[in-house]
Amino acid sequence: MTSARKPFWIAVAATTVLGCAVCVSRAARAPEAASSTIQATALKPPANGPINVAFVISEGADVMDISGPWEVFSDAMLTVKGKPWHETDGMGDMLMPFNTYTVSDSLKPVKASNGLMIVPNYSFETAPRPQIIVIPAQDGRSDAQKAWLLSNAATADVTMSVCTGASMLAQYGLLNGLTATTHHMFAAGLQKQYPAVHFVSGTRFVDHGKVATAGGLTSGIDLALHIVERYYGQDVAQVTANTLEYHGELWKNPEYDRVRPVVAAR
Amino acid sequence: MTSARKPFWIAVAATTVLGCAVCVSRAARAPEAASSTIQATALKPPANGPINVAFVISEGADVMDISGPWEVFSDAMLTVKGKPWHETDGMGDMLMPFNTYTVSDSLKPVKASNGLMIVPNYSFETAPRPQIIVIPAQDGRSDAQKAWLLSNAATADVTMSVCTGASMLAQYGLLNGLTATTHHMFAAGLQKQYPAVHFVSGTRFVDHGKVATAGGLTSGIDLALHIVERYYGQDVAQVTANTLEYHGELWKNPEYDRVRPVVAAR
Repeated sequence: MTSARKPFWIAVAATTVLGCAVCVSRAARAPEAASSTIQATALKPPANGPINVAFVISEGADVMDISGPWEVFSDAMLTVKGKPWHETDGMGDMLMPFNTYTVSDSLKPVKASNGLMIVPNYSFETAPRPQIIVIPAQDGRSDAQKAWLLSNAATADVTMSVCTGASMLAQYGLLNGLTATTHHMFAAGLQKQYPAVHFVSGTRFVDHGKVATAGGLTSGIDLALHIVERYYGQDVAQVTANTLEYHGELWKNPEYDRVRPVVAAR
Repeated sequence: MTSARKPFWIAVAATTVLGCAVCVSRAARAPEAASSTIQATALKPPANGPINVAFVISEGADVMDISGPWEVFSDAMLTVKGKPWHETDGMGDMLMPFNTYTVSDSLKPVKASNGLMIVPNYSFETAPRPQIIVIPAQDGRSDAQKAWLLSNAATADVTMSVCTGASMLAQYGLLNGLTATTHHMFAAGLQKQYPAVHFVSGTRFVDHGKVATAGGLTSGIDLALHIVERYYGQDVAQVTANTLEYHGELWKNPEYDRVRPVVAAR
């Protein structure tokens, strides 16, 4: 039989949605905050060592939400002298400045979206301290996850969500008072559930510097390229996009439509 | 320290490249074969049961090469009556016509690109027979893999590679005499290594019907959307792209540049 089931992201939408009479008007009052989706500054790579990129995963973690940023950070390259690498430099040794790893409650395999089984590289107890934290859409919440995220987001350069991963940041209070984006099919539900956040649509991502949120699924590629740009400049980010054979240009200017507040679901 | 190492796909390029005096002229003689990169027909979904999509993985399997098609096939949806689903149909139960799973030599965790650890869902001995086979870039080759691939590709609707996954299809003889594409940085090396294949550049994918090859990394999204279109039509594929928030349009017409033969590396 052909399986009749709900796709990965339904689980997030089906969680209890808190009623809120003021959220519509709050969101509707925030157009000025939504007029620019980038309020971010350049980031400085550490003097020594790689830039650690921790991917928080749990049951139902979305495969594209993980792999978009994973591939971008994996493929960003410098020459061995730390200069921007270009294809004409040839295929010798390069510096790979980002170090990607997954983190979860334990090292038990996590069933990601549609059954891809991922063994976490670290538990929350053992994970190296990251400069970048990536939150894909996922179902799992735990006290250890919350404690780790709040502690590490405080010291990280940037914490970024992809898709309905924004719901974790919202739940843990990291988006209070900020504009944010998420998957377009879940924005109204999340706006109702988290009235302290000003969700917007029409942009691939919203970057406040220390915290950033991408839209659905492939939007994570654009936000990750933008973060590469914040560390190393547009030339390095463009070469990374070329390596991915990624033809999208929205990482340079993420607003693909009129950016507007999301009206909370009834 | 920042790690000085080679990115995932270098391993493929670094394998022994067989010299071939005729490959340049063979490739140069094949422009007419490269003039259209789609010679594919519509595909018929099975009368009962899902369309099985097997992802062959081994050490070094590239994360984006897996996840692009994985997400596309995961998110393609129909209504419970088997009609094209649209967002206005709401978030009730849908039919998810594709069933994705990974296959490898054993169930031992596979270290994919940049250290993502994936537990295969099946071994070659236990995997369900697939209608679609996806070959991401990867390092591993084995007799069991070759036997399984040759047996299953013979009965599958389509066998598709992403990125330098084309090297596995070429090595096992599945591209002999055919045009094919691969990651742009490795096309010349693969052309030299596999002179019986006519590699081309300038296109997101080449689809011969039973066998298809995508370019590098994100190109797999486009080829997978094209295969969804072959089964269910462009409306279903477009809604799938919308769900992925994928703004690329090259899955409809993959030739983004002048399609031309690849000149083999010296």
